[in-house]
Amino acid sequence: MDSAEFRRRGKEMVDFVADYLEGIEGRQVYPDVEPGYLRPLIPTTAPEEPDMFEDIISDVEKIIMPGAASPACTELETVMMDWLGKMLKLPEAFLAGQVGEGGGVIQGSASEATLVALLAARTKVTRRLQAASPGLTQGAIMEKLVAYSSDQAHSSVERAGLIGGVKLKAIPSDGKFAMRASALQEALERDKAEGLIPFFVVATLGTTSCCSFDNLLEVGPICNKEDMWLHIDAAYAGSSFICPEFRHLLNGVEFADSFNFNPHKWLLVNFDCSAMWVKKRTDLIGAFKLDPLYLKHNHQDSGLITDYRHWQLPLGRRFRSLKMWFVFRMYGVKGLQAYIRKHVRLAHEFERLVQQDPRFEICTEVTLGLVCFRLKGSNRLNEELLERINSAKKIHLVPCHLRDKFVLRFAICARTVESAHVQLAWKHVAQLATSLLATPRD
Amino acid sequence: MDSAEFRRRGKEMVDFVADYLEGIEGRQVYPDVEPGYLRPLIPTTAPEEPDMFEDIISDVEKIIMPGAASPACTELETVMMDWLGKMLKLPEAFLAGQVGEGGGVIQGSASEATLVALLAARTKVTRRLQAASPGLTQGAIMEKLVAYSSDQAHSSVERAGLIGGVKLKAIPSDGKFAMRASALQEALERDKAEGLIPFFVVATLGTTSCCSFDNLLEVGPICNKEDMWLHIDAAYAGSSFICPEFRHLLNGVEFADSFNFNPHKWLLVNFDCSAMWVKKRTDLIGAFKLDPLYLKHNHQDSGLITDYRHWQLPLGRRFRSLKMWFVFRMYGVKGLQAYIRKHVRLAHEFERLVQQDPRFEICTEVTLGLVCFRLKGSNRLNEELLERINSAKKIHLVPCHLRDKFVLRFAICARTVESAHVQLAWKHVAQLATSLLATPRD
Repeated sequence: MDSAEFRRRGKEMVDFVADYLEGIEGRQVYPDVEPGYLRPLIPTTAPEEPDMFEDIISDVEKIIMPGAASPACTELETVMMDWLGKMLKLPEAFLAGQVGEGGGVIQGSASEATLVALLAARTKVTRRLQAASPGLTQGAIMEKLVAYSSDQAHSSVERAGLIGGVKLKAIPSDGKFAMRASALQEALERDKAEGLIPFFVVATLGTTSCCSFDNLLEVGPICNKEDMWLHIDAAYAGSSFICPEFRHLLNGVEFADSFNFNPHKWLLVNFDCSAMWVKKRTDLIGAFKLDPLYLKHNHQDSGLITDYRHWQLPLGRRFRSLKMWFVFRMYGVKGLQAYIRKHVRLAHEFERLVQQDPRFEICTEVTLGLVCFRLKGSNRLNEELLERINSAKKIHLVPCHLRDKFVLRFAICARTVESAHVQLAWKHVAQLATSLLATPRD
Repeated sequence: MDSAEFRRRGKEMVDFVADYLEGIEGRQVYPDVEPGYLRPLIPTTAPEEPDMFEDIISDVEKIIMPGAASPACTELETVMMDWLGKMLKLPEAFLAGQVGEGGGVIQGSASEATLVALLAARTKVTRRLQAASPGLTQGAIMEKLVAYSSDQAHSSVERAGLIGGVKLKAIPSDGKFAMRASALQEALERDKAEGLIPFFVVATLGTTSCCSFDNLLEVGPICNKEDMWLHIDAAYAGSSFICPEFRHLLNGVEFADSFNFNPHKWLLVNFDCSAMWVKKRTDLIGAFKLDPLYLKHNHQDSGLITDYRHWQLPLGRRFRSLKMWFVFRMYGVKGLQAYIRKHVRLAHEFERLVQQDPRFEICTEVTLGLVCFRLKGSNRLNEELLERINSAKKIHLVPCHLRDKFVLRFAICARTVESAHVQLAWKHVAQLATSLLATPRD
């Protein structure tokens, strides 16, 4: 949608809202629809090609309005999460479908999703241990619980452990900054020998620092064998999995209990929209609902009625699935794939520019939209380069440390980025490097 | 703002967004402003009278845009929370000001705020006990921690205890459904005698069931004396405290450590916007940040730099304070007060209509916008009346149980509600009651 159409459609939406408010007394205060009314009314998958905006708007009146805030808000979310799950080719077990035991929910952020998964895992292991030995108190169990993530995992994972009141240990990553079986197994054995109870592992696909990928095919089977909950955090990288050529990065997701990524990061859905799937929704509900048996009576673990307030930390909910519905239909799967591919292509374009300059080095493999690079030489030199880049304020780079190296991160993320911007950015960086290297070092 | 102006202004906003996106390459990628730049640029209190929309929009360009997403997003939130705190006449200690140790933060929901407060209290008491006896493990402490709320408190309080891994006990409320000193003290003594550690109390102002108010002036001093964190949940009623005639309902807030209410419920700010204040921001930060000492070096407990990601569960944040800024300025304090007063007036109008019908009874004192009423007679009779009301779908009532009584709840909450709606609603209810009472009972 170009700027001119945005102005036109935006103004139509303003009138849509005003008309709705003017006519609101003509509407029923409570919907006539039955639970499950929505799914049959819309396709089972996202469109490959873009839909017409007119069709989307008329569907709002036809499909959403009769369902009011509830159940429309809940049911569209369930179906949109199925759409998105299918785009990623998630295993069937993660989808809600008509009768599935899994399903998706929109969280506010990946940090929230990690915490929710940890709390669900904590409850599950606590119940299992208490069933085995009824004498055990929750406190006695929590003292022994230990969770794991790579030393490259986002700080929010450590934070989730803090909030959840359990130990979290960092597993040393390998030379490619990936968590591997050997290091995880080693930590497990040591902790079990000390009487601790390993219960939760967070694997990261696309780390914040350098977009490295934990080895799911190694880590997954260990989690299953050791009866540990495996949560996958693919906050940034997840969007790319809608492209067949990147889907292999998700291989091993079949071992996971929960999976999360942020469409608000790289799939053109406005913040916030963090997509989380679980294989067994009852595991989530169990952590937030006092009496899971009660739920069963309400068939809440069938696909028919979903009570999302038991899937998340807050009770209140917004109608965030509308954003997904509009974006998926306005772009179509092909449009979204093209968007991802363009960013990756531009990252590689920047990578080549760096490689052609002997003063610089590429620090990690460029897989998606992030290029980690640096001037050959000291950390101090690169810190000075970053200082000059960010104080010039033409582009903005956020650095990271990879082991002992201070590294610059060039991230492709603007919606409208083109090759010309990448070329300009590199020219700018190269010039600043030239002037930096020309200044006498003390 | 009437419908015609909404259409005009809404379309201006669409153009504002489109212009911004078209001109974005002309803007700096990083702001020039220094931390603390925003506060001096705007008034220290909300306007009494409405501002002009033109002035608000031009302030967005003048005041917000130069501060980009950060620090503008953070600083406007801090100042808006001060504005709102002053509207409520919160004690100075809860305000950030220039150098305050307290301050406000926007959470997503009251349930989130309760959980955040509970986690902060849990961390604080754990650190205190471990400082006294370093041998104590967190697990050993958490096993003994116990929190309290009235038996009328929202279910999200019980949920917070579940997530926080601590016991939560319900204090029997009195004849007016309020938590009183005697019942709380009794529970405290019993639990302390059993070796438990009371650490957290949630007092509710305006309960969900019948808008009853816990007795802060009794409960507060006990919390302070016993060194228990007092959190006040005024999710619905809080908005009314901007009116001098209702402010007395908040008396005793000076005893609290944290206070929360939802401007998205009754102050015309769109969902979500849950306003939470704390007296000591370091208490919150301590629960979510691993090394509170590190923060001190960054002066993060001064009013100058606020890192809200340490004040909440998710890390990501939206620019929700813009909603507050627009609403407070579009209505002015007087406009917001008038809105609250109108709703309360209409609730009393409905109350009088009920009182004039000898078949009905009012069940609890009408303080704000909620009227609890029922047909004199059996619960079954009232359940049938509710069934007829809600299946007619002209109005929608949510019931509650008060002790053994099934009670109907008439809540004034629509933005555009008028006396005519109240009269119609009552006529409708009275007619359905007549036909119900005419049907032969088996």
